[in-house]
Amino acid sequence: MSHTNHHVPTIVIGRLPLYLRALTQLAVEGRRVTSSQELSEKLGFSSAQIRKDLSYFGEFGKQGTGYEIEFLENALREILQVDRVWNMALVGAGDLGHALANYDGFELRGFRITAIFDSAPAKIGAMLGNWRVLPMDTLRETVRAQKIYLAIIAVPAAAAQAVADELVQGGVRAILNYAPTTLSVPPQIKVFHIDPVAGLQSMTYYL
Amino acid sequence: MSHTNHHVPTIVIGRLPLYLRALTQLAVEGRRVTSSQELSEKLGFSSAQIRKDLSYFGEFGKQGTGYEIEFLENALREILQVDRVWNMALVGAGDLGHALANYDGFELRGFRITAIFDSAPAKIGAMLGNWRVLPMDTLRETVRAQKIYLAIIAVPAAAAQAVADELVQGGVRAILNYAPTTLSVPPQIKVFHIDPVAGLQSMTYYL
Repeated sequence: MSHTNHHVPTIVIGRLPLYLRALTQLAVEGRRVTSSQELSEKLGFSSAQIRKDLSYFGEFGKQGTGYEIEFLENALREILQVDRVWNMALVGAGDLGHALANYDGFELRGFRITAIFDSAPAKIGAMLGNWRVLPMDTLRETVRAQKIYLAIIAVPAAAAQAVADELVQGGVRAILNYAPTTLSVPPQIKVFHIDPVAGLQSMTYYL
Repeated sequence: MSHTNHHVPTIVIGRLPLYLRALTQLAVEGRRVTSSQELSEKLGFSSAQIRKDLSYFGEFGKQGTGYEIEFLENALREILQVDRVWNMALVGAGDLGHALANYDGFELRGFRITAIFDSAPAKIGAMLGNWRVLPMDTLRETVRAQKIYLAIIAVPAAAAQAVADELVQGGVRAILNYAPTTLSVPPQIKVFHIDPVAGLQSMTYYL
């Protein structure tokens, strides 16, 4: 697959996980073949958009017969590099941290939490899922030693930037940020911001 | 403002909350004017894209002087209909429900939780934030009586579709879905899916 030869727009990369999720759901339903039209109806992007996005990475569909679901799923997993399982650090052992630590949707889709940190003495040392909560001042050395490249920030907004700084110094290269604040990080570090209000606001337009 | 006269693509509407969030952050920093270039650097969309998106709704920028932040913020709030506060139902009083009930970022941006539901006898009747957790079998009548049009689903995947059905029957028109499953709803109902794994997968491509 020649998928590293082209520069693919970020917005296209952002849609690939949605295609993968829809394909996996179809596979679970026992389906073997789909079409850009069906994916379009499920996802709300035009079928032309879907065909164009996928064409960056090769020829997946055949005129008239559509896409082989399992083949396209595997190709997207390889492209997105989730044909493996990535270790993640979780920072913040509050309510949200508990929900994330107990979330069972990570591992099947390429991720697992392997280290959990908090700054509150009452939380440090407690078990959360399979892991003992570690003190924040061990964050940098732990993620470095364990070669953890991904982290989830689930701390209050006021604490998030300091956490991000420590993560980056420890070698983390991508951050899923639940804190309601924009993080300032070096340009090579990826940040994905989970912002429930932005989602709500994109719906109230239509009400 | 003639913003209801055109059909604006869904994808454009989805970017408006990100513009609004960036503008609010600039305002908090004491700034009064910005440019499509600056917004482009903050958000990762091209400045041409930003100008085109905003031009659907009128003339906000002046050549050479940029955008008045407060004016554009207020216009976007009006367009997105968050120049008011929407009542929301929260379904699910587990760890995630607790995190959402205690989240202080809703009200300033147009939303507040005013009813909380769960099906577990141990949770029903307990206080969560300002509210007593109500039994699930009162969901439909309560959202209907309180004229609640927005809801957050924070229940396990297996329970989510039944919750969505009840919400829709009670008159809810937009759902923020945290459950890791795709909901089947009538076409006029809006659903925004919070999927942390899709966010993570959009970053592993670059690692």
